[in-house]
Amino acid sequence: MVQATVTTLGFDADDTLWQNEQFFRQTEERFLELLADFGDRSALSSRLFAVEKRNIPIYGFGIKGFVLSMMETALEISDGRLDPGIIARVLTMGREMLNHPVELLPGVRETLEALADHYPLVLITKGDLFDQERKLTASGLADLFNAVEIVSDKSASTYARVFAARGDGANKGLMVGNSLRSDILPALEAGAYAMHIPHDLTWTYEHIEEPVEHPRLFVEENIQKVFEVIEKINIKSVDLRI
Amino acid sequence: MVQATVTTLGFDADDTLWQNEQFFRQTEERFLELLADFGDRSALSSRLFAVEKRNIPIYGFGIKGFVLSMMETALEISDGRLDPGIIARVLTMGREMLNHPVELLPGVRETLEALADHYPLVLITKGDLFDQERKLTASGLADLFNAVEIVSDKSASTYARVFAARGDGANKGLMVGNSLRSDILPALEAGAYAMHIPHDLTWTYEHIEEPVEHPRLFVEENIQKVFEVIEKINIKSVDLRI
Repeated sequence: MVQATVTTLGFDADDTLWQNEQFFRQTEERFLELLADFGDRSALSSRLFAVEKRNIPIYGFGIKGFVLSMMETALEISDGRLDPGIIARVLTMGREMLNHPVELLPGVRETLEALADHYPLVLITKGDLFDQERKLTASGLADLFNAVEIVSDKSASTYARVFAARGDGANKGLMVGNSLRSDILPALEAGAYAMHIPHDLTWTYEHIEEPVEHPRLFVEENIQKVFEVIEKINIKSVDLRI
Repeated sequence: MVQATVTTLGFDADDTLWQNEQFFRQTEERFLELLADFGDRSALSSRLFAVEKRNIPIYGFGIKGFVLSMMETALEISDGRLDPGIIARVLTMGREMLNHPVELLPGVRETLEALADHYPLVLITKGDLFDQERKLTASGLADLFNAVEIVSDKSASTYARVFAARGDGANKGLMVGNSLRSDILPALEAGAYAMHIPHDLTWTYEHIEEPVEHPRLFVEENIQKVFEVIEKINIKSVDLRI
C-alpha cells in the first residue's frame, strides 16, 4: 500500500484561477495616456513601478494601494501643475477595477470540481482582504474550497502555517500558482510540492530572473495538468521509497 | 461542579485594545482645515462622511479607503478648482496614519496577560488586513492571542463561525469591544455574551441610536472589568441552572 504523498492542494487566486494582471495593465495604459504630456510612456511606467514598489511596505498589495501610487506618480511628475480632473479620472479608474467582473481562466471550474471530491482545497491569496473576498464570491468557486487564507504576503512561513493548519503539513502539500516569487519559491522552501503555471501577464514585481529548478517543482501549461502532476509525485515517491 | 459558561474570549482591536479613531479624527481635522475655502466645517464633515459611507461597499473599512474618500470629497466640493498640492497633502496624511504608533489603552496588556493563562483569546478585527497586522505586531500583544481573525466586516455569522472554529461555539463565547454596531449587536445575535466598553470617540458609522439592553450584555468602563463580567456570567448560569 502506498500512502498518498500529496494530501492537500493549495491554489493561488489572481492569474491562477482568474484574470487579474490584465486589469492592472489596462488601467496603467489609460493612466499613461492621461499623463502623456509629462513624459514618454516607458519612463512614466518605470516611475510608476518605482512608486508602487516603494509603497508596498506601507500599502501592501492590492488595488487601493495601486490607485494611491498612481496619484503619487502623477503628482510627482507634474510638479504641481496637475489638472485635478486627472486625479478624478484615476479615482474612477480605481473604482472600475474594484468592480471588474471575475473572468475564470480556462478549465478552472471543472478541474477544481473534480479535485474537490478527493482533496481538501485551500485558497491562498495575498492582497486586499475586501477585494479578494469580493472576487471569490463573484467567481462562484467559494464552495469548492475547504479553507480560504487571504494573507498580506506569502513567505515560506505562510505556507508552513497554512499546510499545517489545513492539511498534514507542507511536505504533504502541493501549491499551484502563477508567481514564482509568491507561490512557488516560498512553497518549495517550506517543503511543499509546487506546480507553476506561468501566465502571459506577470507583474514586474513578481518576476524572478533566474530559471528555477527543483525536484519538487513542476512547470505546466494549464491547471488541468494538476492530475498528472499529482500522479507523478506519487509514482516518484514510490520509486524513491520516500 | 459547575461547568464554565464562558470558555473563549473574543476581543475587538481598534479602540478596544488601542487608540484608532483619534487618528482618523485628527486627520479629518487637518483635511477640513485644508478645504476651509470651500465651505463650512460641519457641512464639509458631513459631506466626507456621506462619501465614506457610499464607498464602504467598494473600499471596505480602513485607512486607504478613507484617503480615497477624502480625495473624492475634495474633488467634488472644489468643482475642478482644486490645488494639486491639497491632493499631495492628503496622500501624506494617509501615509502618516499608516505609520502612526500604536497606543495601547490603559490596563490592556496586564488584563490580556492575566486572561491568557486561563482562556483562549481571539482577536476579531475588521478593516485593512495589512494595516491591522502592522498594528498587532507593533502592539506587542500578538503572542497573547491563540488566533487572529481579520475580517472584512462583522456580522452575526462572523461571530458564529469564529467562536465555533476557535472555541466551543458562540454560546460559550464572550465578545469584548467598543462598537455596538460591529462588536456587540452581532455577537449577541450569534448567541454570545458581550461586554461593551464605550470609547469617547466612536465613528459616526458605528453609532447606534437606541439604547441596547440584553440579558447577555454587560456595559463596563474599562477592560479590567472583564474578570467581574466573567464571574457574573458564571454565577448567573448557576442561579438559572442553565
